[in-house]
Amino acid sequence: MHDVIILGGGPAGVAAGIYAKRYNMNMVLITESIGGLINETHEIDNYPGFPMISGAELAMKFEEHLRKLEVPIEYSEVESVEKQGEKFIVKTANGKTFESISIIIALGSRKKRLGVEGEKKLKGRGVSYCATCDAAFFKDKVVGVVGGNDSAAEAAMLLSKHASKVYVIYRREKIRAKPSLTEQIYSNPKIEVIHNTNVARLIGESKLEKAVLNNGTELSLDGLFVEIGQEPSTQAVEKLGLELDPAGYIKTDERMRTNIEGAFAAGDIRTTPLRQVVTAAADGAIAATSAFIHVQVMKRKQQAKE
Amino acid sequence: MHDVIILGGGPAGVAAGIYAKRYNMNMVLITESIGGLINETHEIDNYPGFPMISGAELAMKFEEHLRKLEVPIEYSEVESVEKQGEKFIVKTANGKTFESISIIIALGSRKKRLGVEGEKKLKGRGVSYCATCDAAFFKDKVVGVVGGNDSAAEAAMLLSKHASKVYVIYRREKIRAKPSLTEQIYSNPKIEVIHNTNVARLIGESKLEKAVLNNGTELSLDGLFVEIGQEPSTQAVEKLGLELDPAGYIKTDERMRTNIEGAFAAGDIRTTPLRQVVTAAADGAIAATSAFIHVQVMKRKQQAKE
Repeated sequence: MHDVIILGGGPAGVAAGIYAKRYNMNMVLITESIGGLINETHEIDNYPGFPMISGAELAMKFEEHLRKLEVPIEYSEVESVEKQGEKFIVKTANGKTFESISIIIALGSRKKRLGVEGEKKLKGRGVSYCATCDAAFFKDKVVGVVGGNDSAAEAAMLLSKHASKVYVIYRREKIRAKPSLTEQIYSNPKIEVIHNTNVARLIGESKLEKAVLNNGTELSLDGLFVEIGQEPSTQAVEKLGLELDPAGYIKTDERMRTNIEGAFAAGDIRTTPLRQVVTAAADGAIAATSAFIHVQVMKRKQQAKE
Repeated sequence: MHDVIILGGGPAGVAAGIYAKRYNMNMVLITESIGGLINETHEIDNYPGFPMISGAELAMKFEEHLRKLEVPIEYSEVESVEKQGEKFIVKTANGKTFESISIIIALGSRKKRLGVEGEKKLKGRGVSYCATCDAAFFKDKVVGVVGGNDSAAEAAMLLSKHASKVYVIYRREKIRAKPSLTEQIYSNPKIEVIHNTNVARLIGESKLEKAVLNNGTELSLDGLFVEIGQEPSTQAVEKLGLELDPAGYIKTDERMRTNIEGAFAAGDIRTTPLRQVVTAAADGAIAATSAFIHVQVMKRKQQAKE
């Protein structure tokens, strides 16, 4: 029986791990890898103390920090979380079960899925949600980008440096990125914007071959980058009955408490005014502090009963 | 006329500076030195990314970060801040005046003063508020510590490594530090605890000579360390009419907005559930974002008028 289980290894989970360990809590941090979304970030220049660092390098620094403090890490995916009485039960994709008095949900957010036929099957086989990670694999290839905001425009600009042709497929009449970026998109000879259009279906066997648009056009593509926004990664904690905002993010108070006693949320997965490395890390520190206080109260209650 | 003036150069001010600069705001950061309270911290092991770093070293990393981004810094003390109409007017100890559309108050907190005769005059002449900074100057000397919580006990333990004798002067019946630390205090042969007693007056010409206690005792001391808690450094912003909590900290919402339009607060100076380097830095990032939004709105209003 752990005092706390930390779900997620991005900046929020890392900071929660550091603080929980410093509070001497019996704990485990469950994550597939350390760093979360920063692994998808090329360079970071706004995390105080590191004037300029690659996302991958900062993730390594975070991992080193956890190792030095001997934070126990279970490298797996969180599959499901339930609450039975006052106990949390966490199951992982590698078939293990963990129990705890409290949990810190720091599972972050991920790129929104298109939700069309073929998408799931072709993920990682031409369909990507991270241009920073995968753009270089498409040298001299034909790729598409779905979306029209800043991140879609940035993905298109990056892809245009590698690919021979970049289609930007956008449901609106005009790209809505910041002005300088929008201008670059429309003036780049490699980029062609297809307006007022959605992707209806993806076709391919072992890898992506075509995108079928909602106007019936079939577009031959080697790669498709989906950049239509973020969504919280709340799938694994669905059964807890957490209170969410209309966009699906977990509501907390300033102490990171959710509506479920003993369950705290930190970082991108919660309703918050700003989603940055430093704000996620601060959330994690606060969540660990709140979990520590909660666990002490629960243990005193238990002792009083005995 | 600046878009934003950042008051303070601790972790909150530093992060606000980084973010304001990345938002391309016309700005100045006013502080006596970079780092704030971390300069008084021996070692920091809970700022994610730096497994173990001295406070002074982290302060240097912060300063380097500001330099790389070319954040303009005015090295002086903030003397007063007023709001005239929609404009903030900031005066500094070196006689300069700055004006802005918004301010970020990140002046932090400082050790509480005793408020007794002689204290002001003897500050830096035997009277200290930072054992970490000054303990080593009292080798084989007789020193006092006022207070009985964790920080007072830690100061006494540290001082006992240098001084020949350490008096702990505490107003209550028993030291209230964490159990292990309390035990160390009472079992250390160099430390003598004087209970149920306050300091009434400090005597000394060029340097501290004696502390007069409220029971009339005169204690000959070379140094006196005041460890009776923290208080927000709100002196310079007193005239703004900011809403404060009962302990004097500035109230904000989660976007760091105060009750005064255009004035934001970040870090230790505001009411917050946790006062740490990473939480202060996150506050600064959020405050800069809110100031950026505010300045854009104000500029659009101004343009509409013209």
